Amino acid sequence: MSSELLTRLSFNQITADPWSLEQSIRHCAAHSVPYIGVWRHKFDEATKASALIRAAGLRVSSLCRGGWFSAPTPTERRERIADNRLAIEQAAAIGAEVLVIVSGPANGQSLADARATVLDGLREVLTDAERAGITLGIEPLHPMYTAERSVVVTLRQANDMADALASPAVGVVIDAFHVWWDPEVNAQIERARGRIAGFHVSDWPVPLPGILMGRALMGDGVIELRHLRRIIDAAGYSGPIEVEIFNDEIWANAGDGLLALIQQRFVEHVLG
Amino acid sequence: MSSELLTRLSFNQITADPWSLEQSIRHCAAHSVPYIGVWRHKFDEATKASALIRAAGLRVSSLCRGGWFSAPTPTERRERIADNRLAIEQAAAIGAEVLVIVSGPANGQSLADARATVLDGLREVLTDAERAGITLGIEPLHPMYTAERSVVVTLRQANDMADALASPAVGVVIDAFHVWWDPEVNAQIERARGRIAGFHVSDWPVPLPGILMGRALMGDGVIELRHLRRIIDAAGYSGPIEVEIFNDEIWANAGDGLLALIQQRFVEHVLG
Repeated sequence: MSSELLTRLSFNQITADPWSLEQSIRHCAAHSVPYIGVWRHKFDEATKASALIRAAGLRVSSLCRGGWFSAPTPTERRERIADNRLAIEQAAAIGAEVLVIVSGPANGQSLADARATVLDGLREVLTDAERAGITLGIEPLHPMYTAERSVVVTLRQANDMADALASPAVGVVIDAFHVWWDPEVNAQIERARGRIAGFHVSDWPVPLPGILMGRALMGDGVIELRHLRRIIDAAGYSGPIEVEIFNDEIWANAGDGLLALIQQRFVEHVLG
Repeated sequence: MSSELLTRLSFNQITADPWSLEQSIRHCAAHSVPYIGVWRHKFDEATKASALIRAAGLRVSSLCRGGWFSAPTPTERRERIADNRLAIEQAAAIGAEVLVIVSGPANGQSLADARATVLDGLREVLTDAERAGITLGIEPLHPMYTAERSVVVTLRQANDMADALASPAVGVVIDAFHVWWDPEVNAQIERARGRIAGFHVSDWPVPLPGILMGRALMGDGVIELRHLRRIIDAAGYSGPIEVEIFNDEIWANAGDGLLALIQQRFVEHVLG
């Protein structure tokens, strides 16, 4: 695979969740994948993880994840704020420029209250992010996750939040699986110009086998990935593109062939 | 159950799909449910069905469904147009004021092309609907159905389409299950003032057991139904409210208790 075509490819390590960080690094290095998207539950010490990643010649595209602000009680909210401060420190230590923010569900609050709580939570950690040089990448999730994972569900909403927060430390992360259906997606991507902090790809298979673990490899579904990539390119984003797939079958069979397959599908269905 | 509280209740017969039209009518009449939402596959002749419904003292809140315009070939598109003309005739014959429009999936087209096809299809049958006195109720489905059932997925989009069609025969049908997650839902309901052609209720259980058959009885999920009902009332809608639930368990156990349970949940979780 021509390395020139793959300079923007990032392997988000949740795609092979059974692998340790060391295994993911080894597979990426063996296939000259330039970036890795790291999850917090995959390391104990950020500085040690960072050393391993750098030693293999890899860069970190983002750290997953902060957020989950919409806790119902003041005590829990304070705990979430503290955890987000820790996540910002970890992002800096591991060499990530972006901390991916998944907002969290309503947890028994009204949707309006939960959404206000998310904005308040981000506001509280804004100066920490600014000082650390970390971008908080607000990632809208697909509306089918509203009840369980994220009250932030459209790119318009993420853009509105970024407008309200008005800080260079706030951006948006665009995941094709979460936004492809949106009649407004082109306009909202253009509106996000200058604040696009990441682009994630996978695919939407038909029928969708499950809500959480139903995502597919690029090319095995109906998302117009090349179209989205071009729109995002045209909006000025030239950073890494993360392959992030939650799929039981890929997890069960993750082996030596996985990275080569991802590279092939990336070139065929995202680039070009 | 006080009949005054139940003057707006409609039983959408898909809620008990195993029942014949005759059975649904008998259950509704026995419980003084004033409206029934009828499905086309449940009758052969609209005039005979209409006579049965009137004889039981019931009114038809809507006919399900027209639409499915987004066919990939010209021949299939013509067939869909013809079928929608038939559906408009059936709606008039059965005494429904509203034909519910489910747009259909992209069927291999790009989303943009499929959406244009839906608008073209509606435009083609507009004069038929106007002449018959039938409102085409564009129902946005939840975005998780984009790939398989409807490229129309937000109330903003349905409002935009209604604006573009600019006809008294075009309205929107608001189903709580499909729109509750939308950060814009309050504003788009207000924008739909004067064109709200129906309101459907069910609930979103956590976790959602399945994409198509996962809906729950009102009160068994997280949708703020009373809040939505109040916003829709405030936007001037005073017509029937249909209980439409796709749920395997309800289908399997549909019996004498179902209508009373629906009435109780309707009063507790939708009214008030």
